[in-house]
Amino acid sequence: MCELLGMSANVPTDIVFSFTGLMQRGGGTGPHRDGWGIGFYEGRGLRLFQDPSASVDSEVARLVQRYPIKSETVIGHIRQANVGKVSLANTHPFVRELWGRNWCFAHNGQLADFHPAASFYRAVGDTDSEAAFCDLLNRVRQGFPEPVPVEVLLPVLVQACSEYRSRGVFNCLLSDGDWLFCFCTTKLAQITRRAPFGPARLKDADLTVDFQSETTPNDVVTVIATEPLTDNETWTLYQPGAWSLWRRGECLASGQT
Amino acid sequence: MCELLGMSANVPTDIVFSFTGLMQRGGGTGPHRDGWGIGFYEGRGLRLFQDPSASVDSEVARLVQRYPIKSETVIGHIRQANVGKVSLANTHPFVRELWGRNWCFAHNGQLADFHPAASFYRAVGDTDSEAAFCDLLNRVRQGFPEPVPVEVLLPVLVQACSEYRSRGVFNCLLSDGDWLFCFCTTKLAQITRRAPFGPARLKDADLTVDFQSETTPNDVVTVIATEPLTDNETWTLYQPGAWSLWRRGECLASGQT
Repeated sequence: MCELLGMSANVPTDIVFSFTGLMQRGGGTGPHRDGWGIGFYEGRGLRLFQDPSASVDSEVARLVQRYPIKSETVIGHIRQANVGKVSLANTHPFVRELWGRNWCFAHNGQLADFHPAASFYRAVGDTDSEAAFCDLLNRVRQGFPEPVPVEVLLPVLVQACSEYRSRGVFNCLLSDGDWLFCFCTTKLAQITRRAPFGPARLKDADLTVDFQSETTPNDVVTVIATEPLTDNETWTLYQPGAWSLWRRGECLASGQT
Repeated sequence: MCELLGMSANVPTDIVFSFTGLMQRGGGTGPHRDGWGIGFYEGRGLRLFQDPSASVDSEVARLVQRYPIKSETVIGHIRQANVGKVSLANTHPFVRELWGRNWCFAHNGQLADFHPAASFYRAVGDTDSEAAFCDLLNRVRQGFPEPVPVEVLLPVLVQACSEYRSRGVFNCLLSDGDWLFCFCTTKLAQITRRAPFGPARLKDADLTVDFQSETTPNDVVTVIATEPLTDNETWTLYQPGAWSLWRRGECLASGQT
């Protein structure tokens, strides 16, 4: 199993606090020693940091914790390998270009007997996760050779994720930089922080942040994670089969399959 | 104009020395203040660091200089913007997946009136460089929907680069992680270091390295750059229209268009 971390915000926001909590689970308080990665959108560009070594030991992870990269949409992941060896090519999140945008994807779970037909997008590594991402993009491209609004795209995403779910466990985060889509089959939790902001205390590290001193009254920041990252706030837990779609911190749509 | 840096080696080799020289030109000894990027292949995976800010000021660049990432194939670039604003999406090198491999590309130069038809691969940013990379990959995919050996691919690469050259200046580095292809229309220089190794002294920083203490007698390391990076070694300068293809430090093929 792995852990996911996503963020959608209406102003460029750094994710240092949540990332610090997640990184502790990468070989510190958690067993996820087999790599980690995080993608930050900056406009249409995507800044990707990855490392196949444990996040608690990672020089690159320390940079990301020290260096407050501000982004409106973030996808992060720490890995405990089950399918596919430990290597950079098997490290989430995965990225592909579709319709002239960078699509970014991370997965927690495992799919049984999943060997989609080779089509346009092909896996570089040998994880079921990257295979599912490629299959998903191939379906999108087949359905829509030209860009469509996310509302038109959404049924295809939900349908594909439902099918993957029938083959195992499929918790995922997906973004094209404009929106963030989340799908849960076992575990996913979310919190939306907005004014009045208060203090938040990490579960996995001795760290408290007072968001009031770091935000403006109009800021809206949603964080999605495999498990709640703080122990003094109320997180909403997803039901199996639940999905949600976010833009600029706000929920555009959500549902249950 | 921009500056390119490529490496092909037969053992995983760090490029800290050459990178340190290149980075000085990013706002230090050179005018290339508009971003920098470097991609390191690790197996089939690609580790990409990019920053739209000047490399001499970049926190990420300092990490890359401090942290000796070892790779057999590297492509780096520092940018002085001419086409396309300064942004992460316009920062080289560019990456796309083709045939289940990560293809990485960096360009120095400028193309006039270059607006290839939208096809499968599309530019995320608005540089002529990324447009040319997408066009090149679209040609490859059109010619070869399934993988072919690089020897079969080579005429397509050379032909495409010759056409781009007719529209302006097109010095480029391209790799799929297995081979490194270089094309020159104005400036490109190369050096192959092998035993007996000696000291090398950077032109752009007060730094000398004795490669003998860092290598084994079987190491072969080729570095390709826009201009020679050291002042005490003999670099081979490319003629306009010259191209070369490298694998594991050795030249597989070269020619002149």
